[in-house]
Amino acid sequence: MSTLNWQHITGPRILVDTQRAKRNIQRMQAHADSTSVSLRPHFKTHQSVDIGRWFREAGTQAIAVSSVTMAQQFEKAGWRDIMIAIPLNPRELSAINRLAADTRLTLCIEHEDALNTLSRLSNPVDVMLEVDAGYGRTGLDCAQQERIQALALSTLNLPQVKNIGLLLHAGNSYQARGDDEIAQIHQQSLSQVRQLADFISLPDGHQLFISVGDTPTCSRMKSFPGADEIRPGNYVFYDLMQQHIGACEWDDIALTLACPIIARYPERNEVVVHGGAVHFSKDYIQRDGAPCYGQVMKMTDQGWAGEPVEGAFVHGLSQEHGKVRMPAGMAEQMQLGDLLVIAPAHSCLTMAAMREFVAFG
Amino acid sequence: MSTLNWQHITGPRILVDTQRAKRNIQRMQAHADSTSVSLRPHFKTHQSVDIGRWFREAGTQAIAVSSVTMAQQFEKAGWRDIMIAIPLNPRELSAINRLAADTRLTLCIEHEDALNTLSRLSNPVDVMLEVDAGYGRTGLDCAQQERIQALALSTLNLPQVKNIGLLLHAGNSYQARGDDEIAQIHQQSLSQVRQLADFISLPDGHQLFISVGDTPTCSRMKSFPGADEIRPGNYVFYDLMQQHIGACEWDDIALTLACPIIARYPERNEVVVHGGAVHFSKDYIQRDGAPCYGQVMKMTDQGWAGEPVEGAFVHGLSQEHGKVRMPAGMAEQMQLGDLLVIAPAHSCLTMAAMREFVAFG
Repeated sequence: MSTLNWQHITGPRILVDTQRAKRNIQRMQAHADSTSVSLRPHFKTHQSVDIGRWFREAGTQAIAVSSVTMAQQFEKAGWRDIMIAIPLNPRELSAINRLAADTRLTLCIEHEDALNTLSRLSNPVDVMLEVDAGYGRTGLDCAQQERIQALALSTLNLPQVKNIGLLLHAGNSYQARGDDEIAQIHQQSLSQVRQLADFISLPDGHQLFISVGDTPTCSRMKSFPGADEIRPGNYVFYDLMQQHIGACEWDDIALTLACPIIARYPERNEVVVHGGAVHFSKDYIQRDGAPCYGQVMKMTDQGWAGEPVEGAFVHGLSQEHGKVRMPAGMAEQMQLGDLLVIAPAHSCLTMAAMREFVAFG
Repeated sequence: MSTLNWQHITGPRILVDTQRAKRNIQRMQAHADSTSVSLRPHFKTHQSVDIGRWFREAGTQAIAVSSVTMAQQFEKAGWRDIMIAIPLNPRELSAINRLAADTRLTLCIEHEDALNTLSRLSNPVDVMLEVDAGYGRTGLDCAQQERIQALALSTLNLPQVKNIGLLLHAGNSYQARGDDEIAQIHQQSLSQVRQLADFISLPDGHQLFISVGDTPTCSRMKSFPGADEIRPGNYVFYDLMQQHIGACEWDDIALTLACPIIARYPERNEVVVHGGAVHFSKDYIQRDGAPCYGQVMKMTDQGWAGEPVEGAFVHGLSQEHGKVRMPAGMAEQMQLGDLLVIAPAHSCLTMAAMREFVAFG
């Protein structure tokens, strides 16, 4: 238990509610256990060795990251089963090879040209073939069954490659609103991956491992038919976007930004906080046709209540300033130096921007 | 002269072209000198002690920053005339007081409530009253002449306050496109500030100092009637947004991101680079109704030519991935691991996101 001393918060700071974050970690672990899939949490959300320990306490052994730099960071912190969940970059061959020497390293590829890079490794790796089921960012189109079958065999033929699998990130779930739409994307994506997996035939003794995952489907869906593993990341903190999608409740949001008020304009129902694009990031959700970069939460003595202050949100950001719209009468009651506690639109980018946080609770 | 070794660029890295950046620094200094205003460059753009030295070599003594943290950073690096160009945050009183002990420190206020904070300082400061001439972020409305006159006198009455002035940031110039629109905002803003300054009467022996500045007007306007000082920042690097506004030429852009290609899709005229929201930031300009986060530039042996690759730009970003649209036929010629050199939409946020850079030239 560490307590939160508001007097120590002088400028914009990330607050992490340890109890909510640990509850989120445990809940997802229990969910994975109950649906008989492995959980490989994506650590790009927090990028913190300290928060990594909370996952380890909940039983996590295997993690995903989205860069070689992050893999090095967590390898140094003692993690030994790491997936670099971004297509293999040939320029990072030697760093990857060093990582593969003392960790169970999983790489992702999505093109035949990557085989040449894999063939130059001197340490063993597992390899996931990234597939695309409608998101349209990276991955081989699931419909290219014969191409993927051939690539699977060529990959397994490399002496460096121990196991292979299919990797899906259904990032299109971020466009969904509510369980019905999340379920639709979930079912469509998994059904494509299952059809592909049924088509692929591997040599005796090899099994095709299936890893899927994005926070909306992993949070809301009751089963993951065909999958061996899920890889959500954002759920440790959640954020305004996840609440907007319907992937979490307000009370699940475990990360906020505490920002001091530096200007106030009761006449335009607005205050300005020290807290800008370099703190929040410029990710936003749409609210009433305007961007919303963060939602003001109800403060408590020790953090925040699990509910928003209706009508109080960040509607404009410059580098260090945040413009906060307020319901009528609220800005008048504010003083310069008062803190607002604001749930950001996208906690992963907020954490990446600030890299430091105050944990409490 | 330091040379750029492309082989050393393995992941997304900021490249700073020293020659272009120093040319930008010198040109703005010469412009200020020729128009008889002081130049106080805003260091929030680069936040780098090393790049700060390039300004010192060009004669810079006085700087602006946008946080107390940045002020501390540059104070430690030997800068002794620092303006914290964001409204005074009462919570940072003790840090500000320490800074004021050994630097000529200028603070900004824009409300009577800030006087109480100023009165608790034990070291002398200069104070700027921030005014608003249409941008609508922070600052007292220029039309509130009597209120501002009264605040000026109350501020000067404080024993801690040595000099006062008016501070304007006409951030609405970022909405302008081309010299005519920049000139319109410039003239409207300066005229409001001059009217206000003419109205304000200070006790004998005091002069009202006028500081204005934003990169578009400072880059393009030939004179700053009524102003004593200009405070542009972005001009050291410029970026896609400034080029879009018409504040610089392509060849003035001194900062790019080198990003390796990690996936390619000739069939959709697209490649994906390692280079995402945590590198570019999510600031963008509009291009053909879609967001454009960065423009691919023509590479040379030592950096990039001062012209874009037409039709090649970043149109989508997730945390670590950037989706790059390409003209027909180009994606086919690309290899995994090839580097693209991309001018970001907003160099200040790119620098704040990555904090490290490779300088060459």
